[in-house]
Amino acid sequence: MKLFRYRTADGVKPGLMDESGVARDLSIHVGDVTPETLNPSVLAGIRALDASALPELSGEIDYAPCIGSVGKFLCIGLNYSDHAEEVGATAPEHPILFMKANSCIVGPNDEIRIPRGSTKTDWEVELGVVIGTAAKYVTVESALDHVAGYCVVNDVSERDFQMQLTGQWTKGKSCDTFGPIGPWLVTADEVADPQALALSCDVNGQRMQTGNTDKMIFSVAEVISHLSQLMTLHPGDVIATGTPPGVGMGQKPNAIFLRDGDVIELEIQGLGRQRQPVRADD
Amino acid sequence: MKLFRYRTADGVKPGLMDESGVARDLSIHVGDVTPETLNPSVLAGIRALDASALPELSGEIDYAPCIGSVGKFLCIGLNYSDHAEEVGATAPEHPILFMKANSCIVGPNDEIRIPRGSTKTDWEVELGVVIGTAAKYVTVESALDHVAGYCVVNDVSERDFQMQLTGQWTKGKSCDTFGPIGPWLVTADEVADPQALALSCDVNGQRMQTGNTDKMIFSVAEVISHLSQLMTLHPGDVIATGTPPGVGMGQKPNAIFLRDGDVIELEIQGLGRQRQPVRADD
Repeated sequence: MKLFRYRTADGVKPGLMDESGVARDLSIHVGDVTPETLNPSVLAGIRALDASALPELSGEIDYAPCIGSVGKFLCIGLNYSDHAEEVGATAPEHPILFMKANSCIVGPNDEIRIPRGSTKTDWEVELGVVIGTAAKYVTVESALDHVAGYCVVNDVSERDFQMQLTGQWTKGKSCDTFGPIGPWLVTADEVADPQALALSCDVNGQRMQTGNTDKMIFSVAEVISHLSQLMTLHPGDVIATGTPPGVGMGQKPNAIFLRDGDVIELEIQGLGRQRQPVRADD
Repeated sequence: MKLFRYRTADGVKPGLMDESGVARDLSIHVGDVTPETLNPSVLAGIRALDASALPELSGEIDYAPCIGSVGKFLCIGLNYSDHAEEVGATAPEHPILFMKANSCIVGPNDEIRIPRGSTKTDWEVELGVVIGTAAKYVTVESALDHVAGYCVVNDVSERDFQMQLTGQWTKGKSCDTFGPIGPWLVTADEVADPQALALSCDVNGQRMQTGNTDKMIFSVAEVISHLSQLMTLHPGDVIATGTPPGVGMGQKPNAIFLRDGDVIELEIQGLGRQRQPVRADD
């Protein structure tokens, strides 16, 4: 099942992409796609609907973030073995956790704003995991039971803010618009194996990142289990699980960063595409 | 004005401490104390009420966190010159930012739970700043205009999780119950100078931390201005502004950490007291 949220003159509404790829309005049945919607019984209720009877959406869809009211936006760093090789880093002993402020979340096709003073705004395509039921002290074996679904995330990053402002990485990860999520929340039953998904990211039509989630150092299940030893994962929390090779910072012979007017396109197998125009803040 | 939230059999309700220290129920006028309540016009409406006409609360108050639905919980590290001296660190060039997961927030007198596997759970009394109006790219001079009020924060920290789990600090800062806030949100008009507040923290009746916000390396206004260059600060966001000397990690000759059965008491001049019993998770 592919759930989404879209903007209308009357505010954000919930939608569903049916099996033949027709976008339909869900607002007769649920008010929005929020943490409460991810409850297994609510999802089962939506799944039981006759999708063909839902109102069809016409025209281009103005996608909002695929989940509203996200609690925490957790991110794993350096989690692809081929990316670690690329930058000459050794694989970490535990998942590297940092956070993005949830105020950075935007829709999948919204503008990315380069903040004032930024010269090193960079892209990172990532598999996003959306928690469906609370997880605390869970085992690796049971971890995926707590997943509602998956989505595309662009973990936009300002490298100087991240590493040169004498702060933690969160400084370069939390700028407004630095967290596009969506277009869809694809429920877990539609993702046979989260460790076998191709990912890619193009900038101005040129392929920059190519990867597959089979190169993750810590699997989705291991990440969830580890984080749940530290804190309760709540419904609606989003975990970005790391990026494959090809970020701007890692380009040879010289790093490449985003500039006003650039366009980023990201895709994950089965999870859809994002497309963001880049604009510099005045 | 001192606003608070308290637990009843019918859920969390808003309250107000009047000028003579009598606790009163506010639920006839507002549903809760949330980011929306911090709007200057809403606060002005509450201020205009005849407090003596509000229902008086009897018995002990079961304080909930002083603000509901906190968006981001931002924290500044190493922000007291006397604490920096104590640990032999040089003053940072910019405010050191990290985040606590907002799921760690609890009431001021709730239990602190030592997580499984923890041996180094520590205390940190801090001045909490609560944002009242959105702040983006604001100057130091105008920064305090965006503050709704202040509260006591205990920035509870697990030092091994923070520094030994190959992650960022957030790992040791975000555990469940690691963010007591309250008892009150004291509105900014009652805090003549946020840079002249005495802070203290006792563990089992012994004074461990003594400080004054006049020792902050970056003032509240400087912190807000700096963070607002990175991201929009929204109403209800909480900024913990760093801790004075005397944390457990810094005790001589040996560090001291929290154990099951300990009791922590924190106080900030004019902002009230917190008291947390400590329990270890099974």
